[in-house]
Amino acid sequence: MDKANIISTFKNIQDNICNGLNKITGQLYHEDNWNYKDGKGGGRTRIFSGEIVEKGGVNFSALEGVLSEKIANKLKGGGHQFFATGVSLVIHPKNPFVPTIHMNIRYIERGKKSWFGGGIDLTPYYIDKTSIIDFHKTLKQICDEHKIANYQKYKTQCDKYFFIKHRNEARGVGGIFFDYLNEDPIDTFNFIKDLGYNFNKIYLPILTNYKNKKYTKTQREFQLYRRGRYVEFNLVYDRGTLFGLETQGRIESILMSLPPLTSWTYNWSPKANSEESKLYEMIKPKDWISM
Amino acid sequence: MDKANIISTFKNIQDNICNGLNKITGQLYHEDNWNYKDGKGGGRTRIFSGEIVEKGGVNFSALEGVLSEKIANKLKGGGHQFFATGVSLVIHPKNPFVPTIHMNIRYIERGKKSWFGGGIDLTPYYIDKTSIIDFHKTLKQICDEHKIANYQKYKTQCDKYFFIKHRNEARGVGGIFFDYLNEDPIDTFNFIKDLGYNFNKIYLPILTNYKNKKYTKTQREFQLYRRGRYVEFNLVYDRGTLFGLETQGRIESILMSLPPLTSWTYNWSPKANSEESKLYEMIKPKDWISM
Repeated sequence: MDKANIISTFKNIQDNICNGLNKITGQLYHEDNWNYKDGKGGGRTRIFSGEIVEKGGVNFSALEGVLSEKIANKLKGGGHQFFATGVSLVIHPKNPFVPTIHMNIRYIERGKKSWFGGGIDLTPYYIDKTSIIDFHKTLKQICDEHKIANYQKYKTQCDKYFFIKHRNEARGVGGIFFDYLNEDPIDTFNFIKDLGYNFNKIYLPILTNYKNKKYTKTQREFQLYRRGRYVEFNLVYDRGTLFGLETQGRIESILMSLPPLTSWTYNWSPKANSEESKLYEMIKPKDWISM
Repeated sequence: MDKANIISTFKNIQDNICNGLNKITGQLYHEDNWNYKDGKGGGRTRIFSGEIVEKGGVNFSALEGVLSEKIANKLKGGGHQFFATGVSLVIHPKNPFVPTIHMNIRYIERGKKSWFGGGIDLTPYYIDKTSIIDFHKTLKQICDEHKIANYQKYKTQCDKYFFIKHRNEARGVGGIFFDYLNEDPIDTFNFIKDLGYNFNKIYLPILTNYKNKKYTKTQREFQLYRRGRYVEFNLVYDRGTLFGLETQGRIESILMSLPPLTSWTYNWSPKANSEESKLYEMIKPKDWISM
């Protein structure tokens, strides 16, 4: 694959997403350019923080280096030389009616092998079924346009990956998750681009519809409480986060995924038939497409 | 060792601490008694939440069971049969001038071996040197009264254990930390009891002195920000927490250690010479006793 082309495409996707967020929210991002301390390359971290996107990071990075023995043994593929580039984002909106979203697209080379990976998933607090169904339908459409992509498989992988074992609870309502795609690099790159360039179409309508909806103190508190689950998943299970911590990556870019304000309340659970209790039904993995 | 004696002592220490906290704060605790689902025994979890102790858990548990192969390989000692009892507490005060405190005392039997372990450490936000020196001096006194205990060794182990690698930062100002004490069980148990029964003498004066001190919005925000480090340590590194999650322990008792309200701010650092910057000097491991 042409690395320079992938890099410029990924940067362009980052620009496109940041411009989209800026248009809807009026917020400007703060940008930090950084170098990878243990090798070549670096990243371009962009952070939104304010009244609509309470905290959001849209990161681009492209770096190469040599894997330590410990890390090399944990990853697929052979050899210690690696190259990795990607766009990674997490948006924590202020309004509890807007779901948190995460997306990652990446291209990795290790020794003689190379592959694409990534995913997108939605973590709501209060949400109508229609928004979830639309989210999944759009993802299925994107997958269906590419021979190599398989919505059902990626959806199942997403449900499996974003699962908080110690809570026996999904992190959100899922999406798609895929890794080690290497069979048809051109079609795969087209799929990856489609996903990246469609982020605004997928998320911005939800943000627009709900960003100004009035919410109560209880609803805000529920959002802060549920954000705790996001922290628990990211710090205990998320492979990308733990890999970043172990490899001494740029810590503030890795942990930009953590929410701005979060609370843990001992042994809390929603009242039966409350609006909050509905979320616990929503996040049980299900076949959204057939609804 | 006489397990029944250890159990009743540990329960009594839990009572003593809860009564002490109640006297100073006027707060009552919520109690949950629970059974260990995969074996015998269970626990008595007590939670304080309110205006002085914003969130605090004082847990007692005593349980026995069979270790899974995976867990058995990770722990010292042989055999799969185990018995574990202990008192574990974390107090997150509301006032940023009062440090968070953590203490754990435990007795473990595995196969034919048995040992004591535990520790206590302080995590301040704003604090005067005198309070830290007094804290360490009291711990040294307690250690010095027992042949088996070694303050210097335990202090060094504490600094090493409560270290957040990815931040290159200590969690707090340390204390003592020890494990696998099995040489003189009677003296060791006396040391463990001394630590447990002295908790009130160690912590309640600090709580009393600072619980009503006026604080600013900035000081409260700094406290919430620093609590993020507590979460990062507990979910990424703390062996007790990760062991609990892996063994499917009672999740709400394990995660009672997480703070009530926490915030993550991208790339924040204190201004030079600010009150907040002083903390970062304080938490660099140092020889408090000789000051």
